[in-house]
Amino acid sequence: MLILMKSNASEEQLRAVAARVSELGLTAHPLKSSARTVVGVTGDINGHDPAAFSSLPGVSRVMRLSVPFKLAAREFHEDDTVVNVSGVSIGAGQKLCVMAGPCSFESPDQVLAIARAVKAAGATLMRGGLFKPRTSPFSFQGLGKDGFKLMADVRRETGLRFVTEAMDEAGLELVDEHADMIQIGARNMQNFSLLKRAGKARKPVLLKRGMSATLEEWLTAADYVLSGGNRNVVLCERGIRTFATHTRNTLDLSAVPAVKELSHLPIIVDPSHGTGFRQYVPPMALAAVAAGADGIMVEVHNEPEKAKSDGGQSLYIEQFEALMKAIPAVAQAVGRAT
Amino acid sequence: MLILMKSNASEEQLRAVAARVSELGLTAHPLKSSARTVVGVTGDINGHDPAAFSSLPGVSRVMRLSVPFKLAAREFHEDDTVVNVSGVSIGAGQKLCVMAGPCSFESPDQVLAIARAVKAAGATLMRGGLFKPRTSPFSFQGLGKDGFKLMADVRRETGLRFVTEAMDEAGLELVDEHADMIQIGARNMQNFSLLKRAGKARKPVLLKRGMSATLEEWLTAADYVLSGGNRNVVLCERGIRTFATHTRNTLDLSAVPAVKELSHLPIIVDPSHGTGFRQYVPPMALAAVAAGADGIMVEVHNEPEKAKSDGGQSLYIEQFEALMKAIPAVAQAVGRAT
Amino acid sequence: MLILMKSNASEEQLRAVAARVSELGLTAHPLKSSARTVVGVTGDINGHDPAAFSSLPGVSRVMRLSVPFKLAAREFHEDDTVVNVSGVSIGAGQKLCVMAGPCSFESPDQVLAIARAVKAAGATLMRGGLFKPRTSPFSFQGLGKDGFKLMADVRRETGLRFVTEAMDEAGLELVDEHADMIQIGARNMQNFSLLKRAGKARKPVLLKRGMSATLEEWLTAADYVLSGGNRNVVLCERGIRTFATHTRNTLDLSAVPAVKELSHLPIIVDPSHGTGFRQYVPPMALAAVAAGADGIMVEVHNEPEKAKSDGGQSLYIEQFEALMKAIPAVAQAVGRAT
Amino acid sequence: MLILMKSNASEEQLRAVAARVSELGLTAHPLKSSARTVVGVTGDINGHDPAAFSSLPGVSRVMRLSVPFKLAAREFHEDDTVVNVSGVSIGAGQKLCVMAGPCSFESPDQVLAIARAVKAAGATLMRGGLFKPRTSPFSFQGLGKDGFKLMADVRRETGLRFVTEAMDEAGLELVDEHADMIQIGARNMQNFSLLKRAGKARKPVLLKRGMSATLEEWLTAADYVLSGGNRNVVLCERGIRTFATHTRNTLDLSAVPAVKELSHLPIIVDPSHGTGFRQYVPPMALAAVAAGADGIMVEVHNEPEKAKSDGGQSLYIEQFEALMKAIPAVAQAVGRAT
Repeated sequence: MLILMKSNASEEQLRAVAARVSELGLTAHPLKSSARTVVGVTGDINGHDPAAFSSLPGVSRVMRLSVPFKLAAREFHEDDTVVNVSGVSIGAGQKLCVMAGPCSFESPDQVLAIARAVKAAGATLMRGGLFKPRTSPFSFQGLGKDGFKLMADVRRETGLRFVTEAMDEAGLELVDEHADMIQIGARNMQNFSLLKRAGKARKPVLLKRGMSATLEEWLTAADYVLSGGNRNVVLCERGIRTFATHTRNTLDLSAVPAVKELSHLPIIVDPSHGTGFRQYVPPMALAAVAAGADGIMVEVHNEPEKAKSDGGQSLYIEQFEALMKAIPAVAQAVGRAT
Repeated sequence: MLILMKSNASEEQLRAVAARVSELGLTAHPLKSSARTVVGVTGDINGHDPAAFSSLPGVSRVMRLSVPFKLAAREFHEDDTVVNVSGVSIGAGQKLCVMAGPCSFESPDQVLAIARAVKAAGATLMRGGLFKPRTSPFSFQGLGKDGFKLMADVRRETGLRFVTEAMDEAGLELVDEHADMIQIGARNMQNFSLLKRAGKARKPVLLKRGMSATLEEWLTAADYVLSGGNRNVVLCERGIRTFATHTRNTLDLSAVPAVKELSHLPIIVDPSHGTGFRQYVPPMALAAVAAGADGIMVEVHNEPEKAKSDGGQSLYIEQFEALMKAIPAVAQAVGRAT
Repeated sequence: MLILMKSNASEEQLRAVAARVSELGLTAHPLKSSARTVVGVTGDINGHDPAAFSSLPGVSRVMRLSVPFKLAAREFHEDDTVVNVSGVSIGAGQKLCVMAGPCSFESPDQVLAIARAVKAAGATLMRGGLFKPRTSPFSFQGLGKDGFKLMADVRRETGLRFVTEAMDEAGLELVDEHADMIQIGARNMQNFSLLKRAGKARKPVLLKRGMSATLEEWLTAADYVLSGGNRNVVLCERGIRTFATHTRNTLDLSAVPAVKELSHLPIIVDPSHGTGFRQYVPPMALAAVAAGADGIMVEVHNEPEKAKSDGGQSLYIEQFEALMKAIPAVAQAVGRAT
Repeated sequence: MLILMKSNASEEQLRAVAARVSELGLTAHPLKSSARTVVGVTGDINGHDPAAFSSLPGVSRVMRLSVPFKLAAREFHEDDTVVNVSGVSIGAGQKLCVMAGPCSFESPDQVLAIARAVKAAGATLMRGGLFKPRTSPFSFQGLGKDGFKLMADVRRETGLRFVTEAMDEAGLELVDEHADMIQIGARNMQNFSLLKRAGKARKPVLLKRGMSATLEEWLTAADYVLSGGNRNVVLCERGIRTFATHTRNTLDLSAVPAVKELSHLPIIVDPSHGTGFRQYVPPMALAAVAAGADGIMVEVHNEPEKAKSDGGQSLYIEQFEALMKAIPAVAQAVGRAT
C-alpha cells in the first residue's frame, strides 16, 4: 500500500500516519520527493481498508499495490484455465466456442427451428432465456420451467449444450440442475448473494460484464464465484454504457487482451447485446475473434420480426450461416482452431 | 408508436410495414415528409415490442411515444406521493428528511455513539449496513442479524427509525420484519427478483439509482416494486459512473428536478456515495437541498479513520453537526421546512 | 515519480529500471512489499515523460506524484485569486456574479430588450454569442462584428459588462479589443493555439470545461493561459458528457468544491448548457450557489420560442426575474453576498 | 420534423403549435394516439431550429427526421468515396492503408530509422507530429517547421507519404504545403475555424473523432470540411472517453460498420491512442481490420523507452513487423487486399 501525503503536509502529520501504520502491525517506509512525501506500507495489509488511512490529516490519497482480486488473477495462477461445459472446452488453445440462439425461448417450434439451424452452422452451445430480466414488469417474462423440458428434447436431438440465465437463487438451482452452463447477467454482476450461490453450483458459470463495470470489479465478481469452490468461470464482454448512441452499448473489445493479461479465465464476446443492431453483429463478431476471444455468443432467430424481445439485434438464420462461414479464416489468421 | 422509414425505403417496404401493423390489430398512419416517411401506429400497443418493427426491411428505427413506466409516472398519478416511514413523512410539502449513520454497523459502542450524535443533530432515520455488498469477497461483510437487536435498543433510546440494505430475498424478509425502511442498493437496482419481493413487503422501500441507470430505467425498476402492491417507494440519487475521477461517482443533481417532473415519488440524495470524499459532502448536501430534494442520506462515523468501510467519505460528527446547522437556511430559501 | 514493477518482475529488470533512472540524473529508491516492488524516483523530474519508464521490461505502470498543472494549482498559490472584469470582481469573498443573456445576438431589438431586463433583475455581465460554434455549417453562424457596436450601445445605457466567445485567433483579437471578458468554449478547451493567444490578451478569460475533460486537464488548460502572462482566468462548469439522456449534459456540481480545493481560480456554473432544458435551470442555478460557486451564467431570451439557437434552454425573462429573487437567500445561507 | 406533445397537452396548446407551424410556412399533420399527440411537420424545415417549437407550451420534445449532416451522408451520396493521398488510395475496394511512425519527430536519426523500418514492413504513409497538442504547456512541444525538411528527405529516400497534425490556421498552411495529408486531432474535431480552413486546403484531411463525439457530431464536423470544397476526408476512430481505466480510451470499433452505413467516407482506426498500451495495439489492430476498417494508424518507435511522448503506447519495430505479417490473413478473410 502507498500513502501519498499532501504537498503541504506537516512533519507532525507524517509522524501521525507512520504511528497509525505501526499501530496496525504494519511497517511504514517514508520517501520524500520534491513534490510530496510518499509512505510505502509493508506487512500483511489484507483486511486493512486503504480508506482508513485516507482519513488521516495530511493524507492526499491511498493506493493499493495489489489487485483486489486473487483467485481470478493471473498473478497467482499463471496458466490459462480451460473450462469444460459438458465436454465442450473453452479457453486458450481450444477451438473457438460459438454459442447461439434466441434471446428468449418462445415456443417449441421456434426453439427447434433455431436449434437445428445453429447446430448445422457449427454452434456447440445453444443460448436462450427462460427467465428474462426485462426492464419493465409489464414485458414478456419468459417461458419459465417449461423451457427446460423443451431444451432436453433439443439437446437429445442435436447434441447442443444449453446455457441460460439464472436471475435468483431459486432459479439458479434449476439452471444448475437442468442446463449445462449458468449465465449470470450484466445486471446481476454485483448481485453478491447470487454470485456466492453460483460458487456452490456444479455447472460452469458464464459471467457477463456489468454495464458500468471496470475490469477490476468484474474479476473481483469472478472471485466471489471462484471462492465458493466453483473454478469454472467464463467471462463475457457484452458492451458497456457510454455516451455513444449509434449502438445500444459500446462493445469494449480491448477487454479481450486486457483480461487475458490480468486473468487466467477464458473470455468470450457477445456482439448482439454489444451493439444492439443486427447489421453490426457480423463485423463485430469477426473483430472479436481477431482480438483473441475464446468464443462468441450471438442472438439468432428464425423470425426476428416476430421475436418477443431483442428482435432488432437477432441475426436471421442466413446471416448466422454466412457469419459462420467467414469465421474460420479470421480465426486461423490469429492461430485459433474452429 | 412511431416507425421511421429509411430515407431510401421503397413504396413496397412501406406497404409491408403497414400490412404488419394491421396484422397485429393496430392502425398505421403514414406521413411522408421530404426527408423520410414516418408511420404513426395507434391502437393497443402494450405487449408489442417496438423492435419487432425495426426488423422489417426499410425501417430505420422505432420509437415509443409513451414512457415505459406506468405506476411511477406522474402522467398517470398527478399528485405527489408522500411516503410514511413509521411516522416520518417523506415527500413534497413535508419536512426535509435526514438519514445519517455509518456505512456499516461495527460494534454496539460505535452504533450507540453515532446514533446519539446524529439524533441530537436532527436526523430522523439512522442508516447502517448489516449485510454489505462488498466488491471483494475477502472484505468485511457486516455484522449480520445481530445488528437488528442492536438497532432495536438504539431505536428505543433515541426514537431513530432504521433503514438498511437488503441484498437478497432472505435478507429482505429480515429487514422487512426488523427495520423501518428497506434499502435496495445501486448494484441491485435491476435485480428484478429482489424488486418483486420488495413489492410484497410491508415496509417502504428506498430505491437507489444504479450506477449507469437512466431515469427511465430507474423509474421502471420502481414500477417492479409498485406493481407488487407496495406503493411506498422513495428514490435516492447516489451518483453515476462517468469518466470523471475527482469524485468516486458523479452526483447527478439534475435528477432531482427531472424525477419530480416525470414521477410523483419522493427523491432524496446521498452525497457520501455521490462524491466519495468527505470534504465534498457538505457542499453537495446543501446543493441537493437547494435543488429541491426531499431529503438527504449522509454517512457519519465517530472514528472515520478506524471505519471498516467507506471511512474516507464519512463525516466526522462535528462536520455533520455543522452541516445540520447550515441546512435550515438553504431549505427555507427554497420553501422547505426542516 | 513512482514506478510500480509487475508482481513477477525479475531482479534484473529492477536493476535495469534503477540504471535508467540514474542515467537520467535522477535517484531511485526501491521499496519491496509482498505484492510488488515500487521504485520511488527523486530529483528534477520535469521534462521526463513517465511513459518512458513504463516501456521498460517488468514495469507495470508509472505515476506522477505532482499534479500536471502548476500556475493554476493551489499548491503553489495558496490565496484565492479574484478576477476583475472591468470593475466587477469575481472570486472568493466577492459578491456572487451573475452573467445572463441570449445564446446569440440576433437583432438590436432583441439585445436591448434582454439587456434591460437582466440588468434590472440584477445581472452584472451580459453574455451573447457573436461568432457561434454551431455543430453544423448549415446553422445560423451569428451576427459577427456588428454585434460589438450593438453591445457598446447597450453597455453605455445599462453598464452591463460583456462576455462573448472567441472561436479563433482573429476573433480573439476582436473580443479582446471590444468586450470585457473573453470566453473560450467547451469545444476549444484544448485548442492550445487559442489558449496561448488568450494568454497574451489584456482581458480576463472565462474558460469553460470541455465536455469530457477531467479537472486535471481543465486546470492544465488554464495553465496555458496563465503561462502566457494573463493571470485573470475564471473557470466555468457547464456539464459533461455521460450516458444520461434526461439532460443535454450532466452538470457536475462537485467540480465546484473540488476545483476550490485544487486551484485558487474562481469557478462559476452554467446551468443552461449544463441541463439543456429551461425548467431545470432555476433549481440547478440555486444548487450551484449552495455548492459554493462564485457566479452563474444563464441563458435568457425575450422570445425563446423564436430564438435562432438554444431556445429550449433559455429562460423567459419572468423566469429569470423569479430566479434572481430566490438567489439571495441561498447565497446568504452559504455566506455569500449578492 | 416531429413535435411530440405532452400526454396532458390541451387542445388549445395543440392548436397554438399548429398555428406556429403554419406561421413559418410549414404544414402541420397532427396524429393522435392514446399515449399522446404527435405533430408531423412537412415543408422546407432547413434553417428552422427544432428548439423553437420545444419552447411552446404543451410540447414534450421535437425530433428531426433528417440527419444533421448532408455532404458526409450516404443518404445523399450513395457510392463510397475513395481518397487519394499523393497516389495512395484509401477507401472501399482499395488496399488496406497502413500509416505508421512516432508520436513526435524528435531527431533526424530517429525519423530516418523509423521511416526505413516501417517502409520495409509495408507502411505507405508515415505519421509523426511536428506541432504537438500537449496537455501541459510545460511538455515537449515538437520540432516545428524543421520537421518538414527532414520529412522531405525521408520521402525522397523511402517514398513514404507524410501525414501530420495541424493545430491552427497558420500551421495548416504549412502542413497543406509540405505534407501529403492534414491531420485534424481529436481535441480540434469541433474547432470550427480550423475545419473551415481545412475545407479550403488542397491536401486530403484525416479527421480524428473527438473524445466524446457522437457519430452525428463527427460526420457534421466532416461537413464543415466538405462544404468548403475539400471532398477528400478520411475519418479516424481513436477511442472515446468512458469510465473504463484499463485503457487510455475505449476503442469503439463499432464505429467502423456504423460509419460505413451512415457515410460514404473512408474510415481508419488508430489502436495506439485507442488503447494507450502497446501490448493491446496488435490485437486491436487486427480486430479493426476484421471489422472492415479501410486502414490503420499505428505509433512505432525505434526506442520507445526514450520517446519524448507516448512511449508507452508505441510499438517496438519488431512488434510492428510482426503485426504487419499477421495482417494480410485477417484482411483477406474479410475480402480486403493488402
